[in-house]
Amino acid sequence: MTTYALSATFEQPFEEVLTATRNALAEQGFGVLTEIDIKATLKAKLDVDVEPQVILGACRPPLAYAALQAEPSIGLLLPCNVVVRALAPTTTLVEALNPDVMVEVTGNDALTGIARDATIRLEAALEALSALASAR
Amino acid sequence: MTTYALSATFEQPFEEVLTATRNALAEQGFGVLTEIDIKATLKAKLDVDVEPQVILGACRPPLAYAALQAEPSIGLLLPCNVVVRALAPTTTLVEALNPDVMVEVTGNDALTGIARDATIRLEAALEALSALASAR
Repeated sequence: MTTYALSATFEQPFEEVLTATRNALAEQGFGVLTEIDIKATLKAKLDVDVEPQVILGACRPPLAYAALQAEPSIGLLLPCNVVVRALAPTTTLVEALNPDVMVEVTGNDALTGIARDATIRLEAALEALSALASAR
Repeated sequence: MTTYALSATFEQPFEEVLTATRNALAEQGFGVLTEIDIKATLKAKLDVDVEPQVILGACRPPLAYAALQAEPSIGLLLPCNVVVRALAPTTTLVEALNPDVMVEVTGNDALTGIARDATIRLEAALEALSALASAR
């Protein structure tokens, strides 16, 4: 089974990594169409406390369009989620849904090339974050 | 492999079904946290035309919280997408991501009960939509 997350951990505070993640995604042509603050939502709805965590719904329109042409129901797995989560005050995890999951879940090989392109870009975004972290 | 969509087709116009879907999800305790108008987004970004299609990001907070406790990275597959898509002027498809996909992708059996609960509620929402459609 495919590992469902592409991930990287940074020794930096949550807010800093969240901002850097938005920028790194933009540089790779991903717009952030949605943003869910999990911590705030669960606090408001259930009055429970979880670690700071935000789901960014990333979308690169040409890839989304190609995916919809190949698999009309692929909207069920779009946008591509990128989750930034605090593990400790200065340790933050960034995870992106591995685009290969879209191929695996749909069983549609026509998505393979699209998933590969998305993976290259998401990995480049994670690498750019790493460079940023080591440059501090 | 699990069918990745729970779906139902209605002989009603897109906008009508979209509104009814929001209501049916609310009745089952799902808040709609995000909403992406695929048609408008692709028109704005790529100047291409696709059929009317909206992705609703549905979340039932107690289920999301339980899922996060069982599988910390599950945010990558949240919220649960419900896609309303026009197939023709008076034919509209509603699809929800089959929650079993979350169990399958993560390989985490602790999510099985949560997925079952979510499936029952999503199927109830689709049934409520069917009742509404036949009552017209």
